[in-house]
Amino acid sequence: MPIQLTPWGVSGEIEKADYLRLIKEFGTQPLNERLLERLKKHTRDLHFMLRRGIFFSHRDFDWILDNVEKGREFYLYTGRGPSGNTHVGHLVPWMLTKWLQEKFHCKFYFQLTDDEKFFYNEHLSLEDTKKYAYENALDLIALGFEHKNTKLIIDTEYIKELYPLAAKVAKKLTYSTVKASFGFKDSTNVGLIFFTSLQSAPCFLESVKEGKNIPCLIPHAIDQDPHFRITRDIAPKIGFFKPAAIHNKFLPGLGKEGKMSASQPETAIFTTDNPNEARKKIMRAYSGGAKTLAEHKEKGGNPEVDVACQYLLFLFEEDDKKVEDIFEDYKAGSIGSKEVKHYLADKVERFLKEHQLKREKSRKVLDKFILRD
Amino acid sequence: MPIQLTPWGVSGEIEKADYLRLIKEFGTQPLNERLLERLKKHTRDLHFMLRRGIFFSHRDFDWILDNVEKGREFYLYTGRGPSGNTHVGHLVPWMLTKWLQEKFHCKFYFQLTDDEKFFYNEHLSLEDTKKYAYENALDLIALGFEHKNTKLIIDTEYIKELYPLAAKVAKKLTYSTVKASFGFKDSTNVGLIFFTSLQSAPCFLESVKEGKNIPCLIPHAIDQDPHFRITRDIAPKIGFFKPAAIHNKFLPGLGKEGKMSASQPETAIFTTDNPNEARKKIMRAYSGGAKTLAEHKEKGGNPEVDVACQYLLFLFEEDDKKVEDIFEDYKAGSIGSKEVKHYLADKVERFLKEHQLKREKSRKVLDKFILRD
Repeated sequence: MPIQLTPWGVSGEIEKADYLRLIKEFGTQPLNERLLERLKKHTRDLHFMLRRGIFFSHRDFDWILDNVEKGREFYLYTGRGPSGNTHVGHLVPWMLTKWLQEKFHCKFYFQLTDDEKFFYNEHLSLEDTKKYAYENALDLIALGFEHKNTKLIIDTEYIKELYPLAAKVAKKLTYSTVKASFGFKDSTNVGLIFFTSLQSAPCFLESVKEGKNIPCLIPHAIDQDPHFRITRDIAPKIGFFKPAAIHNKFLPGLGKEGKMSASQPETAIFTTDNPNEARKKIMRAYSGGAKTLAEHKEKGGNPEVDVACQYLLFLFEEDDKKVEDIFEDYKAGSIGSKEVKHYLADKVERFLKEHQLKREKSRKVLDKFILRD
Repeated sequence: MPIQLTPWGVSGEIEKADYLRLIKEFGTQPLNERLLERLKKHTRDLHFMLRRGIFFSHRDFDWILDNVEKGREFYLYTGRGPSGNTHVGHLVPWMLTKWLQEKFHCKFYFQLTDDEKFFYNEHLSLEDTKKYAYENALDLIALGFEHKNTKLIIDTEYIKELYPLAAKVAKKLTYSTVKASFGFKDSTNVGLIFFTSLQSAPCFLESVKEGKNIPCLIPHAIDQDPHFRITRDIAPKIGFFKPAAIHNKFLPGLGKEGKMSASQPETAIFTTDNPNEARKKIMRAYSGGAKTLAEHKEKGGNPEVDVACQYLLFLFEEDDKKVEDIFEDYKAGSIGSKEVKHYLADKVERFLKEHQLKREKSRKVLDKFILRD
């Protein structure tokens, strides 16, 4: 079954072929070797997520590099819909954003859409989503961002600045467009119908603040592309640059066939998980491998499907050589799923312990990051 | 042709029968003698707009009186869509609100929907509508309101307080409902689709501020009823009282068949009109009377149709006896349209001169009225 992808849900398992299909369907560009080599001229090295194709697609990233090469500035923007705790998959675009910010010394806006998740989720109050917004923000700060060049936008807190910009987008955006882009129905609530305008606002915020157009680059998971496709259509009509983007693949979940579900906490590793519990989740994770160790040793396994292998690839093993070795050994059947899981679990435990310390420290500085009217 | 009535436009001439039809169609209640007598027990007298049936319909006004009789407070709310200068027809609900506030000593919120008029009008920028909001506000203050118990809400200025309330409404409001209520189409912009949620917000604002439910009464022109019908449906679902309302008829325009059009400034008297110009507009106004003075003297005229007679009835002659005399004489043909126009023009000239002085004085205190986040 082909996957169904909207900003509010992915159904089905995503395979390599689906990402190629998405590039075609969405009309984005592949983030190819040539472009990465061009980027590397400015950054000297490439982040492992770029080297490994975790970021696989883009819109106008070449134009961002044009600007860089002309000595012009750009800024970064990404975000999070605060419907629950942060899981490690959310960290993928945030980590790349951190790397880009270090390389290009640019300003970064991070939007927490508490209104969106309130509109979308029957069971969440605005108080709930705002609480999650503050909690999720700690995870971002824990990655090492600094308040001088990183600003957090919580929609309901910063609405006075966002709303006039969102209104300009909304005036140019018809119901028929959002219906086609997001699959809305007549029974969709008017909050969600309006919402995409608010996700557009940070694409223009720095231009408004600086009184001149400044290019915006958005590292984000590919499912958010329908939002920014709309933004890009409208941007020139209201006098702004189209935002550029680079798109990442989804970290698979720990559940069967890579499923990750908010209602099934055992299918994801949350940044707030007890490290011991996280180890248990990993050990219980679906691996898609052979039924017996003997069979695995004989036939080998598929690291493209094995969740533990994928977690090492996406996030937890920065050393390419080690990833390569593990993948080769796993394919050959000389190491089993359990061993890879143990290796990953050690990494994850260490990461969580460190992250949770930094996360708690972030509470003290959180307020300095938050934009208020 | 039956009139078509939406919050963004009235087409065709409105006759008495249409107002009866609106009560039936909208499902409101007639503001009858019994209710007015009950009100009079508390107010001692009745405002001429109530005596004359200018306010002709209501929702739950009896419940507001129940509350008054139980010694409970209520508050007032009305507003204006700032798409241009204020014309005298806009003053009708504002003047009755002033009277109600004096009688019941209650708080009053006045909303200026700069966002709405931006969404609705292709040619207006947010800067335009905000400018009109500030200009329109002067007309309100000039009527004698005081900043201690009267607060002005300009949507884009007070959005931080309004948005969470609007969001709660929006979550319960589907596209299908706004489509049916306002005749929206797939080509309608998502700003306008969302907007009614913001017009709901002041219905609950005082309850939020005071931390307990407080009844809200909205004096407004009947065309805004679709907004508040939606608000009333949603209010109990989000834990608030349904707002009550009293509805006024439209002041006819000076154009043919009572037409008033923003694009034809000669069809309305604006509060900023030069008093002399206003006189000229009145003298040129459509009267619907006989073709010759001789014919008028013989057959008499119809004060229900004559625009000058209607302006005296709605706004410019507080003395019932004088209105009655003029109407009788006009019917009998013993006074002509020109004489009534001269009588009205004198009243309007005097009103405008005084109003414009007060209006300019209002600039100094304007800031004290405006709610800001």
